[in-house]
Amino acid sequence: MKEYRVAIVGATGLVGQEFIKTLEQREFPVSSLTLLASERSVGKKMMAMGHELEVKETTTDSFHGIDIALFSAGAEHSRHFSPVAAKSGAAVIDNSAAFRMMPEVPLVVPEVNPDDIAAHKGIIANPNCSTIQMVVALNPLHKANPIKRIIVDTYQSVSGTGSAALDELSVQAKQVLNGQNTIPHVYPHQIAFNVLPEIDVFWDNGYTREEWKMVEETRKIMHADDIAISATCVRVPVFNSHSEAIHVEFTRPMSPDDAERILAESPGIKIIDDPAISLYPQPWAAAGSDDVFIGRLRRDASHPNGLVMWVVADNLRKGAALNAVQIAEEMIKRDWVRPREVAK
Amino acid sequence: MKEYRVAIVGATGLVGQEFIKTLEQREFPVSSLTLLASERSVGKKMMAMGHELEVKETTTDSFHGIDIALFSAGAEHSRHFSPVAAKSGAAVIDNSAAFRMMPEVPLVVPEVNPDDIAAHKGIIANPNCSTIQMVVALNPLHKANPIKRIIVDTYQSVSGTGSAALDELSVQAKQVLNGQNTIPHVYPHQIAFNVLPEIDVFWDNGYTREEWKMVEETRKIMHADDIAISATCVRVPVFNSHSEAIHVEFTRPMSPDDAERILAESPGIKIIDDPAISLYPQPWAAAGSDDVFIGRLRRDASHPNGLVMWVVADNLRKGAALNAVQIAEEMIKRDWVRPREVAK
Repeated sequence: MKEYRVAIVGATGLVGQEFIKTLEQREFPVSSLTLLASERSVGKKMMAMGHELEVKETTTDSFHGIDIALFSAGAEHSRHFSPVAAKSGAAVIDNSAAFRMMPEVPLVVPEVNPDDIAAHKGIIANPNCSTIQMVVALNPLHKANPIKRIIVDTYQSVSGTGSAALDELSVQAKQVLNGQNTIPHVYPHQIAFNVLPEIDVFWDNGYTREEWKMVEETRKIMHADDIAISATCVRVPVFNSHSEAIHVEFTRPMSPDDAERILAESPGIKIIDDPAISLYPQPWAAAGSDDVFIGRLRRDASHPNGLVMWVVADNLRKGAALNAVQIAEEMIKRDWVRPREVAK
Repeated sequence: MKEYRVAIVGATGLVGQEFIKTLEQREFPVSSLTLLASERSVGKKMMAMGHELEVKETTTDSFHGIDIALFSAGAEHSRHFSPVAAKSGAAVIDNSAAFRMMPEVPLVVPEVNPDDIAAHKGIIANPNCSTIQMVVALNPLHKANPIKRIIVDTYQSVSGTGSAALDELSVQAKQVLNGQNTIPHVYPHQIAFNVLPEIDVFWDNGYTREEWKMVEETRKIMHADDIAISATCVRVPVFNSHSEAIHVEFTRPMSPDDAERILAESPGIKIIDDPAISLYPQPWAAAGSDDVFIGRLRRDASHPNGLVMWVVADNLRKGAALNAVQIAEEMIKRDWVRPREVAK
C-alpha cells in the first residue's frame, strides 16, 4: 500500500494535536510526518505515530517532498504558506477560512460532496466547524426532499477558539466559584457562566462572519444556492463540541419518522432520540467522538413542511481534524492526491 | 394612600425571595406581609420590609384578611391553595403553570395586555419566564407590523429550576475543574460545561412542555391565535437570566432601524446593540436588572419580511417576581384588586 509524506502546519494547536490523534487512530498511510508551527514552538517535542518528533518552523522551504499538508494555523498563515505548499506539489487541506469561498477551491465534507475534490488545483478547503455538522445532518434529507430554508441557532464550545480559550473558561469558572472578579482576555466578556452572541468579527449587515460562513459555506457544499439560511452563533461555557438547534423547511412535508429513517442510513450520523428517557445528544457526551449526533427530531409546529432537530458534534474532530483527514483518505482512494491536470 | 395585606406563598424559594426584594425596591404599599411556605420551612426567619418575619405553613386558613397573594410554590400547591385564597377574597397572582391556559384566567404581562386583568375572578396567572421576555420584545413590533411566525431557541439559566439547581451547577463545576466525576441530581445529566435540550417534561409531539408554553402562552398574551411559533428550549450552565435567539417573520418588511426605534420607545425594554464594540445583551450582566435587554437586531437573511434579535432578561425578576408585582400594581392603579363583579 502506498504511503504518504504528511506535514501538519499548526501542529501544536488544538486542531494540530487532533490531526495527529486522528491520523494515528485511522491508521493513515504515513511514510513520514513533519510537524510545523510558528517560530515560538520550534524545538518542542511531540509524540506522534509512536515517535518523538521535533516541531520545526514553517518556512517556504518546508514543503519539499511533502505529499499532503494539513493546515490549521489561522487564515493569515494559510494565505502565506498554502500556495507555496501546493506549488511544491503537496495537496493542501486547509482548515482556515482563507480559501473556502474561492470558486476554484473545493470546499468539501466527504459525506456530502466528495466528487468536488476532483477539481482541486492543490488546495482543498475544510469547512467551518458549525457548518460541517449541519450539512452532514441536512444533506441526506435535502436529497430526499429539497430544503428551502434553514434557521439555525448554535451553542458553540470554546475549543473552537483554541487552547487559550479552554484555559480562560477554567480560570474564570474557578474565579466565579471563589467569588472573585474575572478579567476577560480571549473573549470580549466573561465566558464562564455566561453566553456570548459573538463568534468571529461583526459585519456591516449585523451578522458575524461565523454566521455568514454558515450561510455561504452550506450553499457551496450542498450545491444549493437557493436555500435561504439565517443563523445566530453563540458561544457557551462548554469546553468541547458544538450544539445546534436547526429548524428546516422542506419542499414537501417531512415526518420525523421519515427523517430518522433517512438519517439512520446516512454516513457519519448517529441518532440519539428517546426523549421519554432523556436521551438526546449532549456536547459533554459527544466530545471525542467521530459522529454527528442527531436528536429531538420533531415537526416544526410553525410550518407544515418544517422539521426541527438538535445536532451535536465534536468541533475539533468532525468539525475540523477528522473531516480534513477524511478528505485526504478520499483523495487517496480516488487517486486524486495530485491535481488531475498535473497527473495527466 | 391605600395599603394592602400581602401574602407570599413559597416565600423561601428563589422567586419567593425575589418577591420580597421586589416589593421592597418598588415601595409597594404593604400594610402587612405574611410569608407562607411548606411545613419544612415553618419557623424560618426572613428579613422583609425592615422586619424579621417568621415563615408560616400554608393552610386553607392562611388567607383570611389577605388582599393580594403572590404564589410561587409549584403547580400542585397552586392548584390546591389558589382557589381557597381567591375564595377568601384575595387577589391571587400565580406564578405556576396551573391556571395559565384556562380561558377564564387572565394571563398577563403588564406591558402587553394589562386590560385583560379586568376580567379576573380572583386568580391572575403570571406567564412562563421565557415567554414573558419574548412578548415584551415582540408585542410593540407586532402592533406596528403583525407577526406571522416566530422561531425561537433559548439559552436558559438554572435559576429557573430553583435553588437546588444553582447548587448543582456550582458543585458540578468544581468537580469538573478538579477532575472528578459528577453525579446529576436535579437534572437528568451533568449541567456544568454542558447544555441540555430538555426543560420540563416531554410531550408526545416531541416538544417539551416549556417549548409548548412559549407557543400557547404567547398567543394568549398577545391575543394572536394565528401566529405560528416553534421553539427549542435549552438549559445552559448560567446561574441566572435567560437568553433567546428570536427569528420573526412580519406581514411586511421590518428594518432593524425601524424595529429599534419602536422598541426604544416601548416600556420595559433596554436596547444594547453596538456590535462594533462587542455590545449586546448578556445573561451575566442582565442578572438583577428589571429590563428586557434587546440587541443583535438585524434583517433575517432567510426571509424578506424577517428580523432576528437577541433578547435577555433576568428570569427571576421580569421572568417571575417583577412581572407578578407589576400585575398587582396595575390592579391597584385601576382599582381591580377585587374582582369587578364582586366589587359591584
